[in-house]
Amino acid sequence: MNIDTLTKLYIHELKDLYSAENQIIDALPDMIDAAHDEDLKTALRNHREETQNQVNRIERIFQSLDGKPTGHKCKGVAGLVAEGNEVLKDVDDEAILDAAIIGACQRIEHYEIAGYGVARAFARMLGREDDVELLTETIEEEGAADKLLTRIAEHHINLVAARQN
Amino acid sequence: MNIDTLTKLYIHELKDLYSAENQIIDALPDMIDAAHDEDLKTALRNHREETQNQVNRIERIFQSLDGKPTGHKCKGVAGLVAEGNEVLKDVDDEAILDAAIIGACQRIEHYEIAGYGVARAFARMLGREDDVELLTETIEEEGAADKLLTRIAEHHINLVAARQN
Repeated sequence: MNIDTLTKLYIHELKDLYSAENQIIDALPDMIDAAHDEDLKTALRNHREETQNQVNRIERIFQSLDGKPTGHKCKGVAGLVAEGNEVLKDVDDEAILDAAIIGACQRIEHYEIAGYGVARAFARMLGREDDVELLTETIEEEGAADKLLTRIAEHHINLVAARQN
Repeated sequence: MNIDTLTKLYIHELKDLYSAENQIIDALPDMIDAAHDEDLKTALRNHREETQNQVNRIERIFQSLDGKPTGHKCKGVAGLVAEGNEVLKDVDDEAILDAAIIGACQRIEHYEIAGYGVARAFARMLGREDDVELLTETIEEEGAADKLLTRIAEHHINLVAARQN
């Protein structure tokens, strides 16, 4: 791929995020099954639905761009998902596992916060105001999902996990 | 590895961040060489020095923990670095390359913001106040580095990149 304009780089960023979201949709069911805390399970289930909407937003953006969002694999999220699976395998206690799942998911949330932030800055420069609006909706959802995980960790899961010490 | 206490999970998180930081120290010189904008080059050079301090902080924390910070490879940052190298290879224009480097670096910054945030929450639960202080210094540096990259992008690099359209 030969990227020599901001539009091409913007398309590349969106394809990366499209691949990231789809990998997250595939990875979340194992995280949801592995989680024990009901609030955490519910948060992850709701986030999986949100992620589907985020995929749909990228598809809407591509309706007015050349090409399709497919055909690129996001290596960043592939690494994050591999790391999450590794920690699931290594943890041997219910409360500690919930704390570890939150750590893995917050790394993924932050990938998206960074990636969508970059894509939105490009959309602004390119005068693509409808895209800016759609990307902002996703950024706000990702930020809220990250904060919800922090709340669940600090108000409950980390307290229970600390008892296992 | 059998993680069944919060202390063990905390040590695992710190080892992950130690590996992450060392991979970043190794990856930054190629990014610095590839960057064209002087402000960007300077920001990345300064951040490499900061990263060395962040490594030292983790080593200080390990002086009062069992074991060493070595022996774990952070797959998350390995994926992010691979992705950064891929985009460096695919971009064929100076201004676009600078914009792409910022995108890659902000993903890495956000990995660290998430990872250190999780580690600090564990340190708090474990009553390790000295660690909380050290980790907070790093979190503040990472946040400032991320914001500086946003400023460099929005005030200059993305404007130049948009002219290449």
